[in-house]
Amino acid sequence: MSHCQVSIIMGSQSDWPTMEGALKPLEALGVEYETKVVSAHRTPDRLYEFCQQAHNRGIKVIIAGAGGSAHLAGMVAAMTHLPVIAVPVSSRDLKGMDSLMSMVQMPRGVAVACQGIGNSFNAGLMAAQMLALGDPALTERLIDWRVSQTESVAEEVVR
Amino acid sequence: MSHCQVSIIMGSQSDWPTMEGALKPLEALGVEYETKVVSAHRTPDRLYEFCQQAHNRGIKVIIAGAGGSAHLAGMVAAMTHLPVIAVPVSSRDLKGMDSLMSMVQMPRGVAVACQGIGNSFNAGLMAAQMLALGDPALTERLIDWRVSQTESVAEEVVR
Amino acid sequence: MSHCQVSIIMGSQSDWPTMEGALKPLEALGVEYETKVVSAHRTPDRLYEFCQQAHNRGIKVIIAGAGGSAHLAGMVAAMTHLPVIAVPVSSRDLKGMDSLMSMVQMPRGVAVACQGIGNSFNAGLMAAQMLALGDPALTERLIDWRVSQTESVAEEVVR
Amino acid sequence: MSHCQVSIIMGSQSDWPTMEGALKPLEALGVEYETKVVSAHRTPDRLYEFCQQAHNRGIKVIIAGAGGSAHLAGMVAAMTHLPVIAVPVSSRDLKGMDSLMSMVQMPRGVAVACQGIGNSFNAGLMAAQMLALGDPALTERLIDWRVSQTESVAEEVVR
Amino acid sequence: MSHCQVSIIMGSQSDWPTMEGALKPLEALGVEYETKVVSAHRTPDRLYEFCQQAHNRGIKVIIAGAGGSAHLAGMVAAMTHLPVIAVPVSSRDLKGMDSLMSMVQMPRGVAVACQGIGNSFNAGLMAAQMLALGDPALTERLIDWRVSQTESVAEEVVR
Amino acid sequence: MSHCQVSIIMGSQSDWPTMEGALKPLEALGVEYETKVVSAHRTPDRLYEFCQQAHNRGIKVIIAGAGGSAHLAGMVAAMTHLPVIAVPVSSRDLKGMDSLMSMVQMPRGVAVACQGIGNSFNAGLMAAQMLALGDPALTERLIDWRVSQTESVAEEVVR
Amino acid sequence: MSHCQVSIIMGSQSDWPTMEGALKPLEALGVEYETKVVSAHRTPDRLYEFCQQAHNRGIKVIIAGAGGSAHLAGMVAAMTHLPVIAVPVSSRDLKGMDSLMSMVQMPRGVAVACQGIGNSFNAGLMAAQMLALGDPALTERLIDWRVSQTESVAEEVVR
Amino acid sequence: MSHCQVSIIMGSQSDWPTMEGALKPLEALGVEYETKVVSAHRTPDRLYEFCQQAHNRGIKVIIAGAGGSAHLAGMVAAMTHLPVIAVPVSSRDLKGMDSLMSMVQMPRGVAVACQGIGNSFNAGLMAAQMLALGDPALTERLIDWRVSQTESVAEEVVR
Repeated sequence: MSHCQVSIIMGSQSDWPTMEGALKPLEALGVEYETKVVSAHRTPDRLYEFCQQAHNRGIKVIIAGAGGSAHLAGMVAAMTHLPVIAVPVSSRDLKGMDSLMSMVQMPRGVAVACQGIGNSFNAGLMAAQMLALGDPALTERLIDWRVSQTESVAEEVVR
Repeated sequence: MSHCQVSIIMGSQSDWPTMEGALKPLEALGVEYETKVVSAHRTPDRLYEFCQQAHNRGIKVIIAGAGGSAHLAGMVAAMTHLPVIAVPVSSRDLKGMDSLMSMVQMPRGVAVACQGIGNSFNAGLMAAQMLALGDPALTERLIDWRVSQTESVAEEVVR
Repeated sequence: MSHCQVSIIMGSQSDWPTMEGALKPLEALGVEYETKVVSAHRTPDRLYEFCQQAHNRGIKVIIAGAGGSAHLAGMVAAMTHLPVIAVPVSSRDLKGMDSLMSMVQMPRGVAVACQGIGNSFNAGLMAAQMLALGDPALTERLIDWRVSQTESVAEEVVR
Repeated sequence: MSHCQVSIIMGSQSDWPTMEGALKPLEALGVEYETKVVSAHRTPDRLYEFCQQAHNRGIKVIIAGAGGSAHLAGMVAAMTHLPVIAVPVSSRDLKGMDSLMSMVQMPRGVAVACQGIGNSFNAGLMAAQMLALGDPALTERLIDWRVSQTESVAEEVVR
Repeated sequence: MSHCQVSIIMGSQSDWPTMEGALKPLEALGVEYETKVVSAHRTPDRLYEFCQQAHNRGIKVIIAGAGGSAHLAGMVAAMTHLPVIAVPVSSRDLKGMDSLMSMVQMPRGVAVACQGIGNSFNAGLMAAQMLALGDPALTERLIDWRVSQTESVAEEVVR
Repeated sequence: MSHCQVSIIMGSQSDWPTMEGALKPLEALGVEYETKVVSAHRTPDRLYEFCQQAHNRGIKVIIAGAGGSAHLAGMVAAMTHLPVIAVPVSSRDLKGMDSLMSMVQMPRGVAVACQGIGNSFNAGLMAAQMLALGDPALTERLIDWRVSQTESVAEEVVR
Repeated sequence: MSHCQVSIIMGSQSDWPTMEGALKPLEALGVEYETKVVSAHRTPDRLYEFCQQAHNRGIKVIIAGAGGSAHLAGMVAAMTHLPVIAVPVSSRDLKGMDSLMSMVQMPRGVAVACQGIGNSFNAGLMAAQMLALGDPALTERLIDWRVSQTESVAEEVVR
Repeated sequence: MSHCQVSIIMGSQSDWPTMEGALKPLEALGVEYETKVVSAHRTPDRLYEFCQQAHNRGIKVIIAGAGGSAHLAGMVAAMTHLPVIAVPVSSRDLKGMDSLMSMVQMPRGVAVACQGIGNSFNAGLMAAQMLALGDPALTERLIDWRVSQTESVAEEVVR
C-alpha cells in the first residue's frame, strides 16, 4: 500500500509544467504525493483501473489536471467517492476557458472541487486543507504556513 | 444482434426533449435506431459496457447528447472506434456554451463530430450521411430528401 | 460548541432558493449543518467574526454562496484555514458568469473548492466527501448513496 | 476518376499550416486524399464546381478548414450530400471563437461534423472513422492505431 | 426590370419578425424594396441565381438577415459587387453572438456592412444612406427625417 | 472644396498601423481619400467641426477606426447623414471585442456599417462599393478588381 | 442656477425603469438631483449644450445610463471636467455586456466611474460618496446610512 | 496625520507595473498620494486596519488594483465610506475579464468606481476629479490639463 495520500494525475505529459505547481504547498506542508499520466480519452482503461484502486492504495485526495474538453476530473469523480480537485489547464486558443467550462459545470450528484485556470498551487493547498480535517499536526503546519505567507507580503511597494 | 445502426444516448432523461429531434431525419431516411440513457458521470459502468458492446451489437454510429460539463460524447469516443456525433444540450445558465466547450475541444487523437447547441436534428442527419457512404439506397433517399427540403423553402415571404 | 460540522453561509437572503439544494445531500448522508446570512460587502464585521470563531465552534467545512462580484467565499478562505466550498449564484444579466469569475480565479495561496453555477447540491456533496476522509461511517454512507444514485438512473428513455 | 476518398479544402493558402495536421492520421491509416484551396468568399464559382463534381470524382468525405466568418464548410454541406468535417481555424484577434461559431451553429437540415479549433488532426481521424464504416480493412487498421496510441502514453510523468 | 432598389433577403421565413423592421425607414424615406427568402444553406441554387441577377434587375443594395452560422450575407457579398448590409438575427441559445461572429468577421476582400444583432431598422436606414449618395432628393428626405427624429426625443423624463 | 470622397479618421495616431489597410483597395480602385486623427474623447470640438463640415467639403463616405470604448464611428453617424463605416481596432486585453461591441450595437436610428476587428481593408472596399452606386466607371473597376482577386487565388496548395 | 448637485441623464426614456434606482440612495441621503433624456446619438446638440452648461448650472456629478453601443457617459466625460458615473443598461440580446464594454473600456485621459450592469442604485450612492468629500453633514448621513444598511441584514436565513 | 489624500493600494507587488500609471495624472495635477500592498486574500488583517484608519489618516479617495478574483476594491468599499476606484489588473489567461467581473458587478449598497482593464491612469484622473469637487484650485489645474491634453492631439496622421 502506498504511503502517498495525494495522487496528482494529468491528461498528458504536456500538462506537467502546469501541474508542477501543486508540489510546492504539498512539500511545504509535508504531505506525500504521487504523480501519474492518466488520460480519460487516450487511456480509458488506465483511468478505470486507477479509480478502482485509488482508495485501496491509500489515496485520500486526487488532483486532476487537463485542458480543452477536460473530462479527467469529472470522470474520476464519477468512479470514486474520494474528493477530486480539478485544475483546468490553459489551452492554446481559448486560454483555458474551455477547460474551466468542462470541469466546473458538473451535473448534480458528481462533484469536483475546481480551482482557477492553471492554479495547481491552490489544488495542492486545498488537498492539504482537506487532509488537515482529520490530521491535527497537519492543521498546525497549515496554520503556521498561512501566518508565514501573510508575513511575507511586504506593505511597502518596491517601485 | 440489434438491427439498429444508430444508437442515440443521452446523459439524462431530461435531455430527451432536446434529443428527440434526432429521430425525424432518421425516420424520414429509413434508418433504424435505439435510445438509451447512459450517464458518463452517474453510470460509468454502464458507459463502459455500452462502449464494449456497441460494435458487436451492430451499432455503426453513436449520437451522444449531454449538457454542462458534458463528457459523454468524448468518453464514448475514447472507448470505441465507431464515429460519435456530439450534441451539446443547452444548459440553464450558460445556455449550452459550457456543453459546447466540453464537447468540441477534444484532444488530438480522440475525435467527435460536434453539432450546434441543441441541434439533434443535424445529428440524426449526419448519422445518415455517414451510413450512406456504404449504402447506395440510403444515398438515393438522402439526395431525394435534400431536394424536397430545398423545394419546401418558399421564396415568397409571408408577411 | 456547535454540533454542526458544515456551515452554509450566503451573501443575502435572496440566495437561499439557490443554496437550499445543499441540504439534500447533507441530510441524505447524515451530516449536520447550520445556515447563516453573512455578507462580505454589507456585514464585513460579521464576516470577520464568523471566520474567527468557525474553527472553535466546531465547524469543519464552510459552504459559501454569492452572486455578481462574489467575494464571500474568497474572503472566508482568506481568514480561516478550513476548506471553503464556493457556489457561484446565478445573476440577473450575466447568469452567474460574473459570480464564477469572482470565485474560481483565486490567487495562489488562498484556495476555494468551486462548484458549478447554482450547484449547491454538489457543494453539500463535496462537504460530505471531505468530512468522510476522517469518518469511516460517513464513507460507508457515501458509498451506499453513490450506488443508489447509480441505480436510480433508468436506462430506458421515457418518450 | 480520382482515387482519393478524402478531399481537404481550405479557404486560403494561409490555412495550410493548420490544415496540414489532417494528413497524419490519414497517412497512418492508409487513406488517400487531395488538398485544394477553395474560398467560399473569393472563389464562389470554384466552390460551386467543386461541390457539383466531388461525388462523381469519387470523393466520399470532405474536410473543410477556414477562419473568421468561416462559411466554407457550411456552404459545401449545402451543396453536396457527402459528409463534411469542419475545422475552425484560429483567428488573429478572437482566436477561432468566431470561426467556431460560424461553423458549428448550422441550421437544422444542413449538418457539418465540427472539430475543435485548429484540430485538423481529428478531422483526418474522423474522416477515416467514417470511411471505416464500409471498409473492414480500414476498421482493422483503425483499431490497431488506437491500441498503439494508447500504448504510447507513458504513465510515468517525466519531471 | 424591377423598380426596387433594395432587396431584403433572409435565410428563413422565421427571420421575418426580425427583418420586418427594415421596412420602416425605407418606407419613411420613400425607398422601394422587395422581400425574399433565400437560404444559403437550404437553397444554394436560388442564392446563386439571386446574386447573378440582382444587378441586372436594378437592385442596388442588398440587406441580408440570418441567424446562427449565418452565411447568407457573406455569400451574397462573395457573388456580387453590390453593397451588402448584414443583419445578425438573434438565436435561441447564444442570442445572436453566433450570428454576429459569422457575419462581421469577414475575410479581407469580401466586405459586408454589419448592423447590430436584430437591428434591421438600421439596415434599412443604412441602405437609404448609401442610395442617397447618388440621389439628392433622397438626401433631402434623409436630412429631414434625422431632424424629426431628433425633435421627437423629449428631454423631460416621464416618471 | 476637397477632391477627396472618402475621409479616413481614427481616434489616435496609434490606430494608424491598423487603419493603413484601408488605403489599398481605395488606391487600387482609384478613389481619393484623406486621413485625420479625430478623437471623440480627447478632441470633441474637432469631432463636432469635422461632422459639420464633411458634407460641404465634398466628403461622401467616412471610415472611422477606434479601439476599446470606441465611440468615434457612432458619434460621427450621430452628427452627419453620410454613411459611416466602422473599424473596431484590436485592443490590448480584450482583443477588440470591446471595440466591436462599442461599434456594432448601435441604437435604432443611428446606423454604422461595421467591419470585422482590424479589417480596415474591407472598410476601404465597402467605401468604394458605396461610391460605385453612383459611379459607373468605378463600378467597372470594382468588377474587374473582383475578377483579378478571384484569379489570384491558386487552387493548388503550396505545401 | 439649479440647486441640484447631481444630474441623472439617460439615452432614452426606455432607460428610466433601470435608472430610477439611482433616486433611492440620493433621496435617503438628502442629495438633490434632476433627470433628463440626453441621447448621444439622437440628440448630439443637446448633449453638447448639456455638457457646456452643467458646471455653470451648479451640477457637480453626472450619472449617465445607456445601453448597447453606450456612448453617453464617455462623451459627457469628454466634454466636462465633472466626474461622470456610468450605468450600463441591460440590452435585449447581450444583456448589457455590450453596454459595459462600451462604457468601462475608456481610453487613457477620459475617465468614467463605471457601475455594474443596471446598478443605478450604486451610481446614486457613489455620487453621494463623491459629494460627501466636501460636505461633512452628508458624510455623517452616509456613515449612518451604512450602519443602518448593515443592521438590516438579518443573520438568520428565512427558509 | 498623512498629507496624502489618495491612497493607491494593490493586491500584490506584481500589480505595480500596472498601477504605476496612476501616478502620472496625480503628479501632473499636484495631488499627493501614498502606495501600499494590501492583499484582501493574503493580508486580511492589514486590509481591515487599513480601512479602519484611512479616513482618520486624512485619506479621501482610495484606488485599489487587483487581478483574477479581485476582491480588494469591493472589500475596501465594504469597510469605509470613502469612494473607492477599482482598477481590474489584466490576468494571464483571461486577460482581466475575470478581474473586471469581480470588480464591476458589485451588489446594491456597496459601490466602487470601476475603470477599464489596466487603466490606472484613469483611476488617478478620476481621483483628482473627485477631489476637485471641493478644491477650486485643483479644478483650475484639471481644466488646464484637459486643454493641454486636447491640444496635444495632432490632427495630421503621421504615416
